[in-house]
Amino acid sequence: MSPTPERITAVDTHDIRFPTSRELDGSDAMNPDPDYSAAYVVLRTDAADGLEGHGFTFTIGRGNDVQVAAIHALRHHVTGRTVEEVCADPGSLFRDLIGDSQLRWLGPEKGVMHMAIGAVVNAVWDMAAKRAGKPLWRLLAEADPAWLVGQIDFRYIDDALTPEEALHILRRGRQGAPERTARLLERGYPAYTTSAGWLGYDDEKLTRLAAQAVAEGFTQIKLKVGADLEDDIRRCRVARAVIGPGIRMAVDANQRWGVAEAIRWTRALAPFDPYWIEEPTSPDDVLAHAAIREAVAPVKVATGEHVQNRIVFKQMLQAGALDVLQIDAARVGGVNENLAILLLAAKFGVPVCPHAGGVGLCELVQHLSMFDYVAVSGTTEDRVIEYVDHLHDHFLDPVVIRDGHYTAPTTPGFSAAMRPESIDRYTFPGGGFWAADPDRQQLQKGQAA
Amino acid sequence: MSPTPERITAVDTHDIRFPTSRELDGSDAMNPDPDYSAAYVVLRTDAADGLEGHGFTFTIGRGNDVQVAAIHALRHHVTGRTVEEVCADPGSLFRDLIGDSQLRWLGPEKGVMHMAIGAVVNAVWDMAAKRAGKPLWRLLAEADPAWLVGQIDFRYIDDALTPEEALHILRRGRQGAPERTARLLERGYPAYTTSAGWLGYDDEKLTRLAAQAVAEGFTQIKLKVGADLEDDIRRCRVARAVIGPGIRMAVDANQRWGVAEAIRWTRALAPFDPYWIEEPTSPDDVLAHAAIREAVAPVKVATGEHVQNRIVFKQMLQAGALDVLQIDAARVGGVNENLAILLLAAKFGVPVCPHAGGVGLCELVQHLSMFDYVAVSGTTEDRVIEYVDHLHDHFLDPVVIRDGHYTAPTTPGFSAAMRPESIDRYTFPGGGFWAADPDRQQLQKGQAA
Repeated sequence: MSPTPERITAVDTHDIRFPTSRELDGSDAMNPDPDYSAAYVVLRTDAADGLEGHGFTFTIGRGNDVQVAAIHALRHHVTGRTVEEVCADPGSLFRDLIGDSQLRWLGPEKGVMHMAIGAVVNAVWDMAAKRAGKPLWRLLAEADPAWLVGQIDFRYIDDALTPEEALHILRRGRQGAPERTARLLERGYPAYTTSAGWLGYDDEKLTRLAAQAVAEGFTQIKLKVGADLEDDIRRCRVARAVIGPGIRMAVDANQRWGVAEAIRWTRALAPFDPYWIEEPTSPDDVLAHAAIREAVAPVKVATGEHVQNRIVFKQMLQAGALDVLQIDAARVGGVNENLAILLLAAKFGVPVCPHAGGVGLCELVQHLSMFDYVAVSGTTEDRVIEYVDHLHDHFLDPVVIRDGHYTAPTTPGFSAAMRPESIDRYTFPGGGFWAADPDRQQLQKGQAA
Repeated sequence: MSPTPERITAVDTHDIRFPTSRELDGSDAMNPDPDYSAAYVVLRTDAADGLEGHGFTFTIGRGNDVQVAAIHALRHHVTGRTVEEVCADPGSLFRDLIGDSQLRWLGPEKGVMHMAIGAVVNAVWDMAAKRAGKPLWRLLAEADPAWLVGQIDFRYIDDALTPEEALHILRRGRQGAPERTARLLERGYPAYTTSAGWLGYDDEKLTRLAAQAVAEGFTQIKLKVGADLEDDIRRCRVARAVIGPGIRMAVDANQRWGVAEAIRWTRALAPFDPYWIEEPTSPDDVLAHAAIREAVAPVKVATGEHVQNRIVFKQMLQAGALDVLQIDAARVGGVNENLAILLLAAKFGVPVCPHAGGVGLCELVQHLSMFDYVAVSGTTEDRVIEYVDHLHDHFLDPVVIRDGHYTAPTTPGFSAAMRPESIDRYTFPGGGFWAADPDRQQLQKGQAA
């Protein structure tokens, strides 16, 4: 240890936006024209190793500036902290961030401020993993169970999961962990693909991409639904005919429905054997998910990409509202809160199938599922990470998909760092791409081009 | 109608902060040092009448700039709209705001973005009421029931309240409305006071202010609890001794506890006959509130000031989690969403006792309760509006409390407009007060002074 402790000296933010709406990739029943974006944060230090912490939250365009402002509002909690302390105990920073009494009023623990906290916390974990010389999944899987429990805030969840129960789950997870690590490094973690099923695609493209998914080794695909029932019936029929009965086909309504409509619509699609219905209604509605689940069984109910925090996930589990829990790496308060959610899912015996896609969400969330496999649930049965073939080339350590599986990352860190030239080019509104874009001014006013 | 329609020409925003943390007013178990603040919006038009629409959301200091940025991100939905259209149907703007597919990603319908929507929507209602020449409560109470139903977004709530049921409640509310209007104008609407019970006050101040509250005609007071149980027992004993058995005494934990602690603590205070326990736990936790309510009866359970939207309120009612529903005028999506919440409460027969205080919340929310009395629930039984004696002199149409009652406003509008000189003086960081403040630079960095 040097006599002068190394400190975090800067919290840099970047408003990065990709013009994805111009390609119709990513369109669904609620999000017709997303411009995949990242409110991106870099923690810089005065340490001799020069290692930075990178993190971000994902948005779909407008409002990415609001998200950047929220990250900026957190910087006083981060700058000046010693690198050693923050990397040895990211949970301490996490608690300070969610406990800021004034900023808490803007949530608490939800929406813009909570996503900003997640970006900062994830950047700390990226730095911690780089300093440890391990990919994040491995840092977590090899960490002391008691230390991991200390990374969790049990406030508002200890009626469903106590620290003692969490410790028990993590200790049990140690049995066979080396063998699972070896298997993970050899085979990777199973993925499913959404690339075929966007609403904007015609039947020809759907057919071609669904066939391609099966050929590439995926055992599950997903179709966006919810805009028009007759269309959905036709698209499900087309997809099922292409993939055959042995491949799972999930459908995703992106919160389009109320309870009655969700039940009616899902039953109408049931002849095509959908594996799960995803986001049938509002992510805030625990009781509605429970009612829908009861009515549409054996079709499973999945949600989570918009579930705001561990407290709502806890209730989803308590109420029996979910068959499949979909964590997102960049919506809740970062790794610390996702640890709580993974342990809640393990306690209730509900499989976790992460949400990914967007920009960088695959890169991040693979680490959490791989940790879950090695050291928490101990299985990949009925577990798949979403995969979407978008924007990976902007990352320094992009995901690698092989035979329908995510290959386990070996580079130290959280795979969060974007290429410097991508940051420069897609910074809004001044970066090279946007400066040359004729629609930039309209977009700056907030209007769709 | 003029041949050139009048339009909204500007959405001005102001970051206004009052240095209330220096007085210990407003301290509670979760918020030790709030600087009451408003992210304030003014809609300006090119209409000859020169009428503006004023609205705001309330924060407690840090992050008020994030809230201002969020309002700014909404302006393209507002500028250019015709004044006549937006005042004739604020619900159309409300739907456009909550339906913005890209901004929706930052919620949906919660936290920073939703509060920003509430500020803008409330500003529109302020303008509409001014143009109608009526205080807002009266505009609502005299509006056509079918038109009011059209102001509500039933998505995600129609499993608990259908448009037909809402129409029935509003039509029933018309019976006797003129008599209730006359009574309201004569007597006002009952209030309760929190001014005596802040955590920072010593027993002498608590005693003096509690006695004063009773002398002033209040029939309910409220004490903040949750920091230290022995202190709370002592303070409840002191307060109950001062006010006697006939005055209601509510207690408020400001989300401090988990389920088990909430039950234990509330039971320990039960000998002093608390009327309700407010915010015993996370505002997101429907199931926890239901469990606590069952365990602490006959003490009532109240919550709402941090409940994010109509969807969570709906579940609170469906789950039997609340005895008292506390709307807030400036957290959800404005008047339109509060219409839905008032009607849900009426459907389930749960009394509404609004949260107020902060800066301007009393001014706003009185209109909603008065509308509820005249045209929805038809009663003030077991209904009181919170009153805190803070910062009212900064408003052009401040609340008037007489004999423990809010006097019904008669000035056209939503009572939202702050005095121009107050806006100038408390704009952060450039206004007169802050420019002269030695702690300004620390506060700008986000650190407490």
